[in-house]
Amino acid sequence: MNPPPSCPLCHGDAGLVLWRDSLCRVVLADEAGYPGFMRVILNDHVREMTDLPVADQRALMNVVFACEAALREVMAPDKVNLASLGNVVPHLHWHVIPRFGDDPHFPNPVWGVKQRDKLRAVQSDLDAQLAAAINRLLARVPEKG
Amino acid sequence: MNPPPSCPLCHGDAGLVLWRDSLCRVVLADEAGYPGFMRVILNDHVREMTDLPVADQRALMNVVFACEAALREVMAPDKVNLASLGNVVPHLHWHVIPRFGDDPHFPNPVWGVKQRDKLRAVQSDLDAQLAAAINRLLARVPEKG
Repeated sequence: MNPPPSCPLCHGDAGLVLWRDSLCRVVLADEAGYPGFMRVILNDHVREMTDLPVADQRALMNVVFACEAALREVMAPDKVNLASLGNVVPHLHWHVIPRFGDDPHFPNPVWGVKQRDKLRAVQSDLDAQLAAAINRLLARVPEKG
Repeated sequence: MNPPPSCPLCHGDAGLVLWRDSLCRVVLADEAGYPGFMRVILNDHVREMTDLPVADQRALMNVVFACEAALREVMAPDKVNLASLGNVVPHLHWHVIPRFGDDPHFPNPVWGVKQRDKLRAVQSDLDAQLAAAINRLLARVPEKG
């Protein structure tokens, strides 16, 4: 469908791009207290996973899982949270969130009640490390299924 | 790994089972205000999607997407929310949630701040309709990748 004028994910990358192909892009989310929080954003304006052809569903999830693998490799989080919600912005995007037992909301979802004020110390080259890991992990995957 | 004694998803179905195979099961979640809220629960105790072989990742997501398709067919929600969190129970399970503009938390995630008190009227045979749709949608999918 044509990009709706009001969709922020149709007009701009919506974050620092770590990886992209013709289907989607991986961006850093810049959420306070959550270094390494990434989003995988479909390039086209599509509402639900089941609006995509199966090959694109698989290709998109491959990218989501590559982000999870990169987070585990670089940050060793206690848990990874994956979510596709889109109630406010109904343009397919996946949240890929490294969670730690002492992060602001743990064990709640990041959308739940805050449990503590805490900013994690971050390695200065975190973004570059994540980008390198994702690029390596996805280097051998064909673009679309 | 062996089922941990304390894991509720290892000891019991954790809901009314609508569909199952050797990899996973689909259960009704019984969350107040959210008829049709389903969970896709891996049978084995596995922590993260990237702990699964790729064939099982794909098979599990096929079931998640079949649940989404069934919800759209039976309930026509305004949006479907998909999430794998597992901070409290680190045993792979996917929340598949039909969302409506007038549901208790919309447009927030169901884990966010409640917006209104509202209980949706539900067709009396909703569970049976969902089970029928899921079974039909998954009838032709091989069990594991």
